Amino acid sequence: MFVLGVDPGVSRCGYAVLEARPAGRARAAAIGVLTTATTEPLPLRLAELQREVRALLGAYAPAVVAIERVLFQVNVRTAMGVGQASGIVMAEAAGRGCAVVEYSPNQVKEAVAGWGGAGKEEVQRMVCTLLDLDRVPSPADAADAAAVALCHLAIEPLRRAAARAGTAGRVR
Amino acid sequence: MFVLGVDPGVSRCGYAVLEARPAGRARAAAIGVLTTATTEPLPLRLAELQREVRALLGAYAPAVVAIERVLFQVNVRTAMGVGQASGIVMAEAAGRGCAVVEYSPNQVKEAVAGWGGAGKEEVQRMVCTLLDLDRVPSPADAADAAAVALCHLAIEPLRRAAARAGTAGRVR
Repeated sequence: MFVLGVDPGVSRCGYAVLEARPAGRARAAAIGVLTTATTEPLPLRLAELQREVRALLGAYAPAVVAIERVLFQVNVRTAMGVGQASGIVMAEAAGRGCAVVEYSPNQVKEAVAGWGGAGKEEVQRMVCTLLDLDRVPSPADAADAAAVALCHLAIEPLRRAAARAGTAGRVR
Repeated sequence: MFVLGVDPGVSRCGYAVLEARPAGRARAAAIGVLTTATTEPLPLRLAELQREVRALLGAYAPAVVAIERVLFQVNVRTAMGVGQASGIVMAEAAGRGCAVVEYSPNQVKEAVAGWGGAGKEEVQRMVCTLLDLDRVPSPADAADAAAVALCHLAIEPLRRAAARAGTAGRVR
């Protein structure tokens, strides 16, 4: 089962396709960034991003798309671009039946590095370790996307267990 | 030739399909809102919005999509939803070959009501007058979308004339 992690953005949209394995480490099937040229008009860039996201979803048919939740950012222009990109990714993913889950930056840091205050390099080192990679995926957006997917793989079993326990509690 | 005006949003996305006529007033072919249920998860709502936007573009095949430019809003949550909706609309429109033009709220007010400080009701009254409607389109998002489309119809001839003048100047 593939999980697609996404760090949304218009200029650079990080992605990581991870394969969950019942035992042992997850395998990275693809890690990279989708880019659009800043010299092009915004609507054309968004259409290009949409095509590339579709191609990714078509190529790997992930069951789950885990996406970094957009929070307030100091730069409003950047925040808007991130919002536009995340809207496109979520619509495309949900439209083709993928489960779409959002994780906050703090959730990602906690799940991957052990604490919400972890620095970027700390998270990147853990991405390397957890995926058994020779070096940190570059650019940073690609590593961030891998971290989001790893966060989902770490949290999902706990969530399921909690749901099972909750159901059992209600049944009793 | 149809112009589709859009006031982007996830809960309510206003739209107005106007037909430009060489002489006289523009005709409103359709004015309304696309809505998604706030009780549904965000990714499903965005996918639904995307389907509805596609249906609109398919039904009217507008040459131009005019969209209200997303500016800083006090409510970050709202701003993010507007960004996500606008990203979906722009990608869908540009992806099928429509020209996509953004207008700021001030440009819309200036073009429709004569000055950038115009109030909402003033703009709505002018939308009624310019489209020869019996009453203000409701909800407000629908009227706002009509105003964006009217803004494009008012500004586009001036822009073309300026472009022609500029070209003539360079040729001489």
